[in-house]
Amino acid sequence: MDLVWICIIVGLVGAGVVAYFVRYVLRQDEGSKEIRDVSSAIREGGLAFIHREYRTLVIVVVVIAIILGLLGFVTPALGWRAAVAFIFGAVCSMGAGYAGMNMALRSNGRTCVAAQKGLNQGLRVAFRGGAVMGLTVVSIGVIGLAIIYFAWHNLPKEQFLAIIPAYGTGASLVALFARVGGGIFTKGADAGSDLVGKVEAGIPEDDPRNAAVIADNVGDNVGDVCGMGADLLESYVETVIGAMVLTTVGSMVAPWVTAKLFPTLSPAVALQHAWWLPMLIMAGGIVASIIGCFLVRVGEKVQMSALLGALRRGTLSATILTAIFAALIVHFLGGSWGLFWAMFAGLAAGALMGESTNYFTSYAYKPTLEISEASTAGAGATIIRGFANGMMSTWPPVILLVIAIVVAFECADFYGVALAAVGMLSTLGVTLATDAYGPVADNSGGITTMVGLPPEVRERTDALDSLGNTTAATGKGFAIGAAGMNSLGLILGFAGAVGIVTVSQGKLVLPPELSLLNWHVIVGIILGALMPPLFCAMTMKSVGVTTAAIIDEVRRQWREIKGLMEGTAKPKYGRCVDICTTIALRQMLAPSIMTIVVPIVVGIILGAYALGGFLIGALATGFIFAITLNNAGGAWDNAKKWIEAGHFGGKGSEAHKAGVVGDTAGDPMKDTAGPSLNIMLKLMSVISLLLAPVFVAIGVGGLIP
Amino acid sequence: MDLVWICIIVGLVGAGVVAYFVRYVLRQDEGSKEIRDVSSAIREGGLAFIHREYRTLVIVVVVIAIILGLLGFVTPALGWRAAVAFIFGAVCSMGAGYAGMNMALRSNGRTCVAAQKGLNQGLRVAFRGGAVMGLTVVSIGVIGLAIIYFAWHNLPKEQFLAIIPAYGTGASLVALFARVGGGIFTKGADAGSDLVGKVEAGIPEDDPRNAAVIADNVGDNVGDVCGMGADLLESYVETVIGAMVLTTVGSMVAPWVTAKLFPTLSPAVALQHAWWLPMLIMAGGIVASIIGCFLVRVGEKVQMSALLGALRRGTLSATILTAIFAALIVHFLGGSWGLFWAMFAGLAAGALMGESTNYFTSYAYKPTLEISEASTAGAGATIIRGFANGMMSTWPPVILLVIAIVVAFECADFYGVALAAVGMLSTLGVTLATDAYGPVADNSGGITTMVGLPPEVRERTDALDSLGNTTAATGKGFAIGAAGMNSLGLILGFAGAVGIVTVSQGKLVLPPELSLLNWHVIVGIILGALMPPLFCAMTMKSVGVTTAAIIDEVRRQWREIKGLMEGTAKPKYGRCVDICTTIALRQMLAPSIMTIVVPIVVGIILGAYALGGFLIGALATGFIFAITLNNAGGAWDNAKKWIEAGHFGGKGSEAHKAGVVGDTAGDPMKDTAGPSLNIMLKLMSVISLLLAPVFVAIGVGGLIP
Repeated sequence: MDLVWICIIVGLVGAGVVAYFVRYVLRQDEGSKEIRDVSSAIREGGLAFIHREYRTLVIVVVVIAIILGLLGFVTPALGWRAAVAFIFGAVCSMGAGYAGMNMALRSNGRTCVAAQKGLNQGLRVAFRGGAVMGLTVVSIGVIGLAIIYFAWHNLPKEQFLAIIPAYGTGASLVALFARVGGGIFTKGADAGSDLVGKVEAGIPEDDPRNAAVIADNVGDNVGDVCGMGADLLESYVETVIGAMVLTTVGSMVAPWVTAKLFPTLSPAVALQHAWWLPMLIMAGGIVASIIGCFLVRVGEKVQMSALLGALRRGTLSATILTAIFAALIVHFLGGSWGLFWAMFAGLAAGALMGESTNYFTSYAYKPTLEISEASTAGAGATIIRGFANGMMSTWPPVILLVIAIVVAFECADFYGVALAAVGMLSTLGVTLATDAYGPVADNSGGITTMVGLPPEVRERTDALDSLGNTTAATGKGFAIGAAGMNSLGLILGFAGAVGIVTVSQGKLVLPPELSLLNWHVIVGIILGALMPPLFCAMTMKSVGVTTAAIIDEVRRQWREIKGLMEGTAKPKYGRCVDICTTIALRQMLAPSIMTIVVPIVVGIILGAYALGGFLIGALATGFIFAITLNNAGGAWDNAKKWIEAGHFGGKGSEAHKAGVVGDTAGDPMKDTAGPSLNIMLKLMSVISLLLAPVFVAIGVGGLIP
Repeated sequence: MDLVWICIIVGLVGAGVVAYFVRYVLRQDEGSKEIRDVSSAIREGGLAFIHREYRTLVIVVVVIAIILGLLGFVTPALGWRAAVAFIFGAVCSMGAGYAGMNMALRSNGRTCVAAQKGLNQGLRVAFRGGAVMGLTVVSIGVIGLAIIYFAWHNLPKEQFLAIIPAYGTGASLVALFARVGGGIFTKGADAGSDLVGKVEAGIPEDDPRNAAVIADNVGDNVGDVCGMGADLLESYVETVIGAMVLTTVGSMVAPWVTAKLFPTLSPAVALQHAWWLPMLIMAGGIVASIIGCFLVRVGEKVQMSALLGALRRGTLSATILTAIFAALIVHFLGGSWGLFWAMFAGLAAGALMGESTNYFTSYAYKPTLEISEASTAGAGATIIRGFANGMMSTWPPVILLVIAIVVAFECADFYGVALAAVGMLSTLGVTLATDAYGPVADNSGGITTMVGLPPEVRERTDALDSLGNTTAATGKGFAIGAAGMNSLGLILGFAGAVGIVTVSQGKLVLPPELSLLNWHVIVGIILGALMPPLFCAMTMKSVGVTTAAIIDEVRRQWREIKGLMEGTAKPKYGRCVDICTTIALRQMLAPSIMTIVVPIVVGIILGAYALGGFLIGALATGFIFAITLNNAGGAWDNAKKWIEAGHFGGKGSEAHKAGVVGDTAGDPMKDTAGPSLNIMLKLMSVISLLLAPVFVAIGVGGLIP
């Protein structure tokens, strides 16, 4: 029997659990009319944005699909099948983002109501709202992959391996637009609302007189839920794709892959198993994640540490279970233990990267406290210390990545790198659930303030929100680690696809054209290194543009709508949502198109070897920039919170003002530029892999030999 | 005749011009007792710092020299000769920094006196003070190289080529310590003095009641003059070294180098000429620079544009003359025109990189004005826009670097890259003069305020200072470009030294071990990319430590010394200088040692191929980080100045406060971390090149095969 059926079954089980959680959440009390009004305003805004975003996306997707179809005339590897796979990937990504966001939008008000009863009830609703997202992503991911597999795996091997990257590219493209567009929306609205409300007018956060508050809450959903879901769906499917593609490097030299990775099998069966292995590990991870999700519960004691412990219990059990399942699967498929260790290296590295992010951004530890302390010397010192801290925080993830790479290579060569990525993402179902829970909690806090619920409810939603910040930090560290590992796998796949790998005396012989002494490679690396900072510069600037527009609009409403500041009239929330939507969709185009076009231009003009260097260069700086920006931003946020908790003078002190500057500066770094970099790296890699046959057809040397 | 004699002669001519300028400056009026007092306090502080810094350095240099000598037992390529060359390089660098700074310290007071007579007089004294530095560096550089050449070029070629990197390493090591130590000193003192004086106590900059003002002025000299001189001396000699070493890649395959680069010569003569060429171009550049220096003069019209025009005339004429000389030299040595074009590509790219920096950091252009405008929305917006601007500003230098690399490779292969670096640095005599002029002008402004000269004198010194900021920005862009090109040359030299380059059908065959598909190379690239952010984090944090100590000390003096604030007692300036010196010297050790040790560890554990990747990875991120930090910092500085000039509310407005935050945050980025990265990149490359024979001896594959 083809074991991929197991994936379909597990995917359907996942979907069943999703349905159960959805029913659970929808059965909860929607609360008073005020809560429902605010909640539905946020929902309308979020859906309006997504609809307009997807309308833009459909055009882009169709155009690219046509191009892919036409490229069938250039190389038989592409053509209509690639076009269909591409569209399918895009649809899966849109569906996952949409479903997750829709559910988050229905959970926020209910969390708010549940929190009136108690912290535990609030946690449960918010977490299950987030878990819908996590399990939807992994179920769609694994079923989608299985469909592609069953549709085309009987084609000639080379053709199958050329088509599946098209599926990943579709998912990747949607993810990029969703992350960038959502990121610009969310931080533009957030900064605009804060600057004009908290700083300028001196009214509290989420005050209903501020016309931008709904936009701010919408932003949490379109950026942090929809964008992140699409991002991780992409990582999820692309790791499997990477693993399948990397069997080529071995399968062209079948004796080698058989002898080393599946010592007891014949070459043909070994290849089959090498394709099954990543999908089955993913299926095992889904089962483990479901179990993990049900383990998230707290007793009567509802302290912060207990809450965090509950979430940790869920993710940790899933991790251990996944490792056990993976060992069984490897054994059952007749694989060497090296395969397990490669996968395990990724699993462990991913978990540790999350912890490292937590260390560098939580005010429970020294780095963030130092930023709070530096704030007493003014905002300049806050910025310097925070930025230095962000740069310093790059070392643990880089070292972990390097260790995982070395272990993976030593244990299972090229294929091992992809397996490490698979290991890292295998528990995504539960890690994404803990991550997507954050924005739900954040939103419920916003609604609590807007409808004027009693302070003890806000205290509870604040506690849930604070817990969400911790899981978000961990999730971010994990996401960038996964992106790095994953795009390395894709890059190796690309290099294998354009380089000529041969075997001599039982060892792979590497293509000398990809040598560092080839100037094409050097130039590629330098150009690739340029991409992440340019991308960050563009997206951060876009946030500034959106913020300025929001500030203008809120000021205008205060000026023109009589009785607004006195609370007798209501602001036009919809206008701010509209403005954010329009600007975010316009601003997301330039960085996204640059991400798609530049690698292709490099591949054509400077050649495929230069493109290999380009991708590695982009990975090197992209990884560093993403961690620096994420952690600097996260630490500034929490350093401010620490001051607000009454240290170094507390709220209103000079140190607090400095802390606010750090937080404002860090927001677009950690929520727009940083996370978008993940997708940028993956998209450039997968698009290069997809077009590798084209580069080979038109000449790998490029136009300047 | 051995044409290198020409270099000795030109070097001596340069020394003669230096002597003439020194006499000119020393003949100028030293001014009143007050001026002499302040000036001598700065001088004492500067010299005290240098003496203590050099004492630390001597120990490090001796230890490393002994190690190099002992390594002679591992590989015959090193040994006592390498140790001597290393010490000689270190001494040259110390000498150049010392001479330049000493002169700058004697010019500041005199510039102040000359500025009382008029702007033109002030310009002349300050520029000639700076020109001493510029011409000293190039003269020492070229004479030093000639001495090394005459001493050992008759050794077997391989041994000669292994020894000369030791000379560069010596210079590099001193430069790193000087830049890092000086950078921490200068920005620690600057930020401390500003925060406690301007911000906290509300007294003007350079107010004599502030105990840190002398330390601030000392910092300009130890950081911007001594550090920069050592930095560029290093670039200067290392480009020539790189060019010589890269003849190996060709000379091992003599028919190839002869046929392509020197088509009419026999192999032996071709190699000889390939060694002479870079040194003779440098000699031509010195002559051109001397002429350029004398062309810096203004007429009666002393507007800002006229001043800038005067400096531009000097550098532009030197550039054109150098190109003409280089064409003649190439022709005379029987070289192909490709050699000229490779050199010219570097010359042009260097000049354009300087202009690009100017565009992104001067308030005459849009990027900086946008930062000023963003400041009206608060300091957070200032930081975001400035940082985005810094990242955006990376594209012109990167594209220029890439074009220069492509042209160089296409015209003269590996050797061409080194020639492009030679071209970039050939006009250093005059570009460094315009650059070193800045701190002299800055200091003279400080003295003017401290001794209370009439406001029109301060206006003139301010104008000179402002001009200095422009030339400093241009100079910084040029320095990082030179560092990038130069370390690429050294990396290629290293790769050639550890890789096996062969020739087949008239073309070089590249070593497959350096392929991107070798995990050692990938891991190397990722680890290398980590180094620059760590280095920046460490140095920026060190500035914060120094600043905090200075603030404490100034506050203490105000508290304890009676009559200080009333102006009846004098502060203890020396204490602040002492504190800066002690902390800077202690803090410079960790980043410097990391720079030396990590590449060696990588080379030993992961092997020489990984080290090749490591150096390229470090170059890619280092180049990006250096430009981002330099330009973000420079633009923040000028955005603040633009607001101070009366825009967006002018001094004291909210926008101004935001601008000050940007400036404070940018200072350690642009004056400590950014410029130090240049040297870090070069030092890691040259030390790897120097130790290449050791890596080959212990096995290029490393400990993890």
